[in-house]
Amino acid sequence: MIYFRSDYSQGAHPKVMEALMKTNMEHTDGYGLDSHSEHAARMIRELIGIEDCSVHMMVGGTPCNVTVIASSLRPYESVISVRSGHAYFHETGAVEGTGHRVVTVEGINGKLTPELIDLAFEEYQDEHTPLPRMVYVSQPTETGSVYSRAEMEALSRKCSEKGLYFYVDGARLGAALTCRGNDLSIRELASLCDAFYIGGTKNGALFGEALVIKNKEMDDHFRFMIKRQCGLLAKGRLIGVQFEALLEGGSDSIYFSMASHANHMAEELREGLKALGVGFDGESRTNQLFPVLPSDVVKELGKEFFFYEWAPEKNGMIPIRLVTGWGTEESDVQAFLKRAGELISKR
Amino acid sequence: MIYFRSDYSQGAHPKVMEALMKTNMEHTDGYGLDSHSEHAARMIRELIGIEDCSVHMMVGGTPCNVTVIASSLRPYESVISVRSGHAYFHETGAVEGTGHRVVTVEGINGKLTPELIDLAFEEYQDEHTPLPRMVYVSQPTETGSVYSRAEMEALSRKCSEKGLYFYVDGARLGAALTCRGNDLSIRELASLCDAFYIGGTKNGALFGEALVIKNKEMDDHFRFMIKRQCGLLAKGRLIGVQFEALLEGGSDSIYFSMASHANHMAEELREGLKALGVGFDGESRTNQLFPVLPSDVVKELGKEFFFYEWAPEKNGMIPIRLVTGWGTEESDVQAFLKRAGELISKR
Amino acid sequence: MIYFRSDYSQGAHPKVMEALMKTNMEHTDGYGLDSHSEHAARMIRELIGIEDCSVHMMVGGTPCNVTVIASSLRPYESVISVRSGHAYFHETGAVEGTGHRVVTVEGINGKLTPELIDLAFEEYQDEHTPLPRMVYVSQPTETGSVYSRAEMEALSRKCSEKGLYFYVDGARLGAALTCRGNDLSIRELASLCDAFYIGGTKNGALFGEALVIKNKEMDDHFRFMIKRQCGLLAKGRLIGVQFEALLEGGSDSIYFSMASHANHMAEELREGLKALGVGFDGESRTNQLFPVLPSDVVKELGKEFFFYEWAPEKNGMIPIRLVTGWGTEESDVQAFLKRAGELISKR
Amino acid sequence: MIYFRSDYSQGAHPKVMEALMKTNMEHTDGYGLDSHSEHAARMIRELIGIEDCSVHMMVGGTPCNVTVIASSLRPYESVISVRSGHAYFHETGAVEGTGHRVVTVEGINGKLTPELIDLAFEEYQDEHTPLPRMVYVSQPTETGSVYSRAEMEALSRKCSEKGLYFYVDGARLGAALTCRGNDLSIRELASLCDAFYIGGTKNGALFGEALVIKNKEMDDHFRFMIKRQCGLLAKGRLIGVQFEALLEGGSDSIYFSMASHANHMAEELREGLKALGVGFDGESRTNQLFPVLPSDVVKELGKEFFFYEWAPEKNGMIPIRLVTGWGTEESDVQAFLKRAGELISKR
Repeated sequence: MIYFRSDYSQGAHPKVMEALMKTNMEHTDGYGLDSHSEHAARMIRELIGIEDCSVHMMVGGTPCNVTVIASSLRPYESVISVRSGHAYFHETGAVEGTGHRVVTVEGINGKLTPELIDLAFEEYQDEHTPLPRMVYVSQPTETGSVYSRAEMEALSRKCSEKGLYFYVDGARLGAALTCRGNDLSIRELASLCDAFYIGGTKNGALFGEALVIKNKEMDDHFRFMIKRQCGLLAKGRLIGVQFEALLEGGSDSIYFSMASHANHMAEELREGLKALGVGFDGESRTNQLFPVLPSDVVKELGKEFFFYEWAPEKNGMIPIRLVTGWGTEESDVQAFLKRAGELISKR
Repeated sequence: MIYFRSDYSQGAHPKVMEALMKTNMEHTDGYGLDSHSEHAARMIRELIGIEDCSVHMMVGGTPCNVTVIASSLRPYESVISVRSGHAYFHETGAVEGTGHRVVTVEGINGKLTPELIDLAFEEYQDEHTPLPRMVYVSQPTETGSVYSRAEMEALSRKCSEKGLYFYVDGARLGAALTCRGNDLSIRELASLCDAFYIGGTKNGALFGEALVIKNKEMDDHFRFMIKRQCGLLAKGRLIGVQFEALLEGGSDSIYFSMASHANHMAEELREGLKALGVGFDGESRTNQLFPVLPSDVVKELGKEFFFYEWAPEKNGMIPIRLVTGWGTEESDVQAFLKRAGELISKR
Repeated sequence: MIYFRSDYSQGAHPKVMEALMKTNMEHTDGYGLDSHSEHAARMIRELIGIEDCSVHMMVGGTPCNVTVIASSLRPYESVISVRSGHAYFHETGAVEGTGHRVVTVEGINGKLTPELIDLAFEEYQDEHTPLPRMVYVSQPTETGSVYSRAEMEALSRKCSEKGLYFYVDGARLGAALTCRGNDLSIRELASLCDAFYIGGTKNGALFGEALVIKNKEMDDHFRFMIKRQCGLLAKGRLIGVQFEALLEGGSDSIYFSMASHANHMAEELREGLKALGVGFDGESRTNQLFPVLPSDVVKELGKEFFFYEWAPEKNGMIPIRLVTGWGTEESDVQAFLKRAGELISKR
Repeated sequence: MIYFRSDYSQGAHPKVMEALMKTNMEHTDGYGLDSHSEHAARMIRELIGIEDCSVHMMVGGTPCNVTVIASSLRPYESVISVRSGHAYFHETGAVEGTGHRVVTVEGINGKLTPELIDLAFEEYQDEHTPLPRMVYVSQPTETGSVYSRAEMEALSRKCSEKGLYFYVDGARLGAALTCRGNDLSIRELASLCDAFYIGGTKNGALFGEALVIKNKEMDDHFRFMIKRQCGLLAKGRLIGVQFEALLEGGSDSIYFSMASHANHMAEELREGLKALGVGFDGESRTNQLFPVLPSDVVKELGKEFFFYEWAPEKNGMIPIRLVTGWGTEESDVQAFLKRAGELISKR
């Protein structure tokens, strides 16, 4: 079986494992108050070119999103997201579990726009409705699309104009930063938002995300918030150690090369399928793709390859999700294209 | 510097690291729906002699406590604990964060008793007070004491009598099971409660606890609950793989030998300090001890050894907490006793 | 100034006030445990023809909705509503404040349909999404439309089929029961749902709603829930006394005659405006109407009559909301129609 | 049957009812945005001598306490109270329902002291514990005792010193202000705290409390908070109208004369029982008293008088709670004393 199911189906990049092995017998303080976590935080501050910010080592993406939202919002406030946003659609109501509404709008190619923010904002400005106070976007989006620099700047301006916190979920940030045609650097992204995270889980770590908070209001007693939301890891250094390994070398680090590799593998799949005449859902430019294939082809492919069917069959066609990762091999891609080609040509 | 600060100051036992390395490049499903997690669950069912129960691989102790409580209680219900209980005293109000009160009583040597349960229960039986519905205890307790079989049976009976769920926090369960004079096996413990967890973080894992839920009412859609409480790990298999390594060999596994080692190191410290005439707070029989030492001795020891001062100075004396772990070495213990002896004899 | 702003702009029907005066000096138990509340509950059981149900005297509509939802749902569960539903759109996130999502769909003429329930239900059946467990509708809807018996039966069947609780918000229930063309009696409504309430605030009471819960699961320790949600009134009898007065005489009671009067006043407004060539938003058949008028007409009318502008100006037209109540007088209606006629004819 | 069960067993003072009747047919805006509520707020600002504060008309005491706490505290923060405090002991966990712990200490005669605040405060100053941020007291306390000016000043200073909000629950404030020996005026009280409320329900209103918030931080978007906590009454003016009637005449108003009457009735009961040799629990100086009587006397008295047994029998004695109100008559008191005298002398 070959996996295109997710970018978290394997363990960690060998260099990450090596760092964990090397530091294993050290004694350090717990809960992220250790020199590795501090060092990783310094590396990140340097990478993004911002000294005056907090960096928190978090266990996962949902804890990042939920803790940031719960820390930033007053009880009567809400967060604006596209309906396909992870914080709305794939977190089992964890945001609502902290008492806040996620106000949703239908995204355009998975993206939010200043106009959509206006729409959501204007509708909720009465004391009988929850007040929007934050904008949540992912870079890249849940459907693999990528905000351009101009788009992100426009969102940032709109947030400033409306007094909304601007938070970017970077679960797959590496994929956005290294994809074909990307024109938004991590430094620019960091400068445009109030908080964002650099995702480790989906880019070669065992687990862990580095959450950067620039806005002091959102960061008030944040470690208390992490603990209260059950996210403070006893051996917090594990995340620090992993980010040291991931980011060693800055823009030449494995963080970027792994993401770049995943994107290339996806690109190869995309081009190969296009050549077979296959169409796609959405306009992903990153390591996820959503080809739409005949049902029987999907069923046959499913016997040899693991992937998700992304939506129910419609007119005999099924959109599937293929995800590549740092560990995806060229031969996996070729095997998939070969088999898909055979199945399509047989029809 | 020698660490007696906690049993989570190092990484994982080498066999745990080895298992993580060995399985690192495997592709598996995410979120704990993998063969390692399933295998570890089977090993645990066999170890505790109970087939009909759920085993959930959890990231940490606070997520275990909070998710179990939030899953089991109706909104108006509360949980009874001793005041020193972890769920009350060291989780930054995470239980209240899910809407539930922790009703506290002063424990006796850190322990709850049937009489104390009665006391708490009777006081809260009016529709103007939250209704107690669960009893929370730790084995061993936060102060290192251990419930005997008879004590645990009495608690279990009281819970049945009052219709209270009985939940045992096993963050340091290994230490209780292997301590001097313990007469309560894991099978007996499992038979007496509705749910408990086998702690990994404080006994040689990088992180992770195995939560066992016998009572179906408490287990309803529990995976939804884990996700909603932000505790579902993408690479959930990591916890499964670690428990496979920890429990390989059952009662001969490193889980038991590591805990036993930590207890022996603590015993040696305890006996050595007693020989120096030192007194103790509480009656710990496990891997934590709370010697009460002259302030100046504490300050001097603090220059070479890491430990917590457990309470403020009183009459020139300070209680400190020493914790041993699977990685504590005989030479660490001897160094501490030697230095303490010198400092005490000099006075 | 003449008010068409809401049906809660005046105090209570004189008979309600009289009952409050008459019972004022009685001493009774607090919190609704008094003979008036019990008597009102018996009157309601008789009115709806159901003996085996709970009747709770509630302070207002939001407390009804929120307490029922918080009592019925497990933490990971959600409630399905049309987007214009009161529990979603006019309660400042109070439902989310108890930890639950309101899953919304765009209603058809303000109404939910079995197909829309299917749509919402199917999309949320994964452990990464909150699980729908209740359907919330209002009779009449927020926009004044009314479910027919056939429509309500279809919703009820769909809920049974999917294992969803079916809850009906009856803030303006009187208006639905007495409107032109209504074919759904209160007995039929009661038989079709798990819980509903008979609204007093918007039909001649000072405040208060009578919440009927048939489904025992939803009613578990409900009085604890009311208190925990801050809704247990010390002098609970006040609501009981008011419902005694409102429902005295059953189908001949002022509850029905007041609602009927409000509907007639609305009907007269509606017909009068139609005669002036005015169009309407939606298809209200009850005591709210949403005429769409030229902006300048709206501004002029606003100088003599109180009403809400319901949406921003579009193409020179503004939809307004006119609401009639038990205290609306024929002369108010005539004055409005006369002035509107003058303004329209002048253009 | 004669009632000494509570001070909310009757309706409202005739002047309050009269005001409700007189204004009944007026049309006003809803949700407390009406001229009566505004006028009542102005009367209160004048009464307390503070112009720069918010006055919110609230439905009841629990909504006041819970909404103030939920509005003022960050998620990781807690409120300090004596264990017998209403917000802890008689609100079914409503505060925890908003995610906050009530940190309790055993009061001294029902009261909090600066030393007790220190005790609670110091113990919770670690990121693993919830951070105290508010002090909650009642004037008078749940057991009828009254803070002196010096005591209230000391609490206020301690709160300033520790950065704690200081909130006073005034459910029975009238009783404190008019009791024998009181030396703390409402103006002084108002000057010493950040927020407090003037209780109506227990002093002659049908329902309603006037919440005064001086501290802007606690008042942020407070009306959104009221709605989100389900406490915004549609016909909000009802509370305004009642407070107009209650406070008409300022210090000569029925608010003060009713409370004074209740205190006098209690005083007469207290002195009469003392003359019979009866002892008391606590040191109430207000309209509640807690005589300790032989069990058989209690049972006999219970046949003619309604009151609560306050604690279980101990050594043949039972403490009962007697409460007087604005409607208690001299003859009720005499009847009780006569019957008690007969029963006691017979023994």
